[in-house]
Amino acid sequence: MALGEFDLIETFFRPPVRRAVLGGGDDCALLQPAPGMQLAVSTDMLVEGRHFLSTVPPERLGHKALAVNLSDLAACGAEPLAFTLGLCLPRADAAFLGPLARGMLALAERHGIELVGGDTTAGPLALSITVMGQVPAGQALLRSGAAPGDDLWVSGTLGDARLALEVFRGQVRLPGDGFEQVRQAMECPEPRVALGQALRGVASAAIDLSDGLLGDLRHVLARSQVGATVWLDALPRSPWLAAQPEAVQQACLLGGGDDYELLFSAPPGAAAAVRAAAEHAGTRASRIGRITPAAEGLQVLPAAGSPTALDLSGWSGFDHFGSA
Amino acid sequence: MALGEFDLIETFFRPPVRRAVLGGGDDCALLQPAPGMQLAVSTDMLVEGRHFLSTVPPERLGHKALAVNLSDLAACGAEPLAFTLGLCLPRADAAFLGPLARGMLALAERHGIELVGGDTTAGPLALSITVMGQVPAGQALLRSGAAPGDDLWVSGTLGDARLALEVFRGQVRLPGDGFEQVRQAMECPEPRVALGQALRGVASAAIDLSDGLLGDLRHVLARSQVGATVWLDALPRSPWLAAQPEAVQQACLLGGGDDYELLFSAPPGAAAAVRAAAEHAGTRASRIGRITPAAEGLQVLPAAGSPTALDLSGWSGFDHFGSA
Repeated sequence: MALGEFDLIETFFRPPVRRAVLGGGDDCALLQPAPGMQLAVSTDMLVEGRHFLSTVPPERLGHKALAVNLSDLAACGAEPLAFTLGLCLPRADAAFLGPLARGMLALAERHGIELVGGDTTAGPLALSITVMGQVPAGQALLRSGAAPGDDLWVSGTLGDARLALEVFRGQVRLPGDGFEQVRQAMECPEPRVALGQALRGVASAAIDLSDGLLGDLRHVLARSQVGATVWLDALPRSPWLAAQPEAVQQACLLGGGDDYELLFSAPPGAAAAVRAAAEHAGTRASRIGRITPAAEGLQVLPAAGSPTALDLSGWSGFDHFGSA
Repeated sequence: MALGEFDLIETFFRPPVRRAVLGGGDDCALLQPAPGMQLAVSTDMLVEGRHFLSTVPPERLGHKALAVNLSDLAACGAEPLAFTLGLCLPRADAAFLGPLARGMLALAERHGIELVGGDTTAGPLALSITVMGQVPAGQALLRSGAAPGDDLWVSGTLGDARLALEVFRGQVRLPGDGFEQVRQAMECPEPRVALGQALRGVASAAIDLSDGLLGDLRHVLARSQVGATVWLDALPRSPWLAAQPEAVQQACLLGGGDDYELLFSAPPGAAAAVRAAAEHAGTRASRIGRITPAAEGLQVLPAAGSPTALDLSGWSGFDHFGSA
């Protein structure tokens, strides 16, 4: 089935315009941020074979492409406003595009945002999304605010997306419906948008976990000029991951990637406020360690109070030009 | 040469932050539109072999990728603020990335804007840019404002980019430095940003020419629910195109694509204001026809007042899934 570019966009990607002053179809979309608001902007690109497998159902791919972008807004505590889509497709295939658009627009709908512009072109399968949100001036959560003595927190559970990837790779087998559950974590992450907004004025620094806990934590430490201690046994994990050998658990928890949970710091006195924010957002928050002075670097202890840290010399952040 | 993703972005694409409240390096960039301003947003994606030839010097490619996006802001009369870049690269190659970034950031510098976010990934060469600008609320130039009786105008000259493509394809030969001149038009278009802003309150509708005059004009006609008459002999062309056979001229002028000039309408009484805006912006503006009632459709006459229109049944807009 061959559709022209304009037909294709009209057919699948033209939701009704609501929040935008002017949506897609003109040279630009027009948005009106509320008075006193700053605009938060982020871009993420997903390429087949690199960020998703060819086995992913198109509806989940559409969801995930937008979800990873919303996750960046969540990490800033921003309220999503709109997004644009650059779509590179091997062919205009309605059987693929229909569910792709459905998955993407369903998530957009749940967050009250709309697709305001985009560009479709022929080529290898890739999706490039830019998402825009708003945050009260001066209240954005940044990577740079962590201070020694702060608690370190993470939302949800970690490592299931990586565990699913290892099942696809044939390295791990999961009994029962475990595979479908962890596959859901990999293919259908839920961006922590409500939690991010609830953490404004509570968290001192935040980042979303896309490259793995240790890799992303290092970004916070570098920006905040601090160190951190992480307690391995405090890292929240699903029953499926908890049933794996210790080495698999460590790899998935510390370096897994694709978690799309929020990693954040907060002063110890804010613990009750953190728990209230998590409850409000319908997710869990786990205290997984502490921010330390920069000189102490990044340490992972088996448990809080353990005398000996793990040897991290073999760990590095997930790098899209590395061997993943 | 292999560079990691983060090194790569740091090395080539980290200009100083000025207009943004917070630039790249956090989960989101933060922007502060001025009070009373609407935000204008547009996305364009360029893929090798489809939007540019592998022979394009990287510096010009960097320029063009941003230029075609700025051209969308120009068509709305918006003032550019910032842009994000999704970059898909076969390999992290400094000899390619250095000039690519140089060409892109030089154009950004000339327009006083900065790169505030992005994503780099391995894969087939493609660039996806989202550009953001601001425009006083209610003053954006839209495609929908043309009215019967308005004059139809175009900036600069048309057709040179397509002429250059035909030289590359071996269909046309150009003497002297003609090839370098038209190649410049194809590879280094200048977005008409100053003209777009000067046309606020003057033009009744506007669009930028990316898909060819007739294809883009049809978008204006559809949005404004009007028709138009275009005078072929009034279409502005370079001496190199003017020296070509009539059939080549027509093809390049009417369907060429990649012109990145502004096509706009204005009431007849605004002609002096249009000329003043063009002079202010340092470009030329040519009156090329007239807006008519919708029932008259789109007609191309050899000249104003000619009794017989050209047969346009063979023309269609450039379509990225068509045979271009």
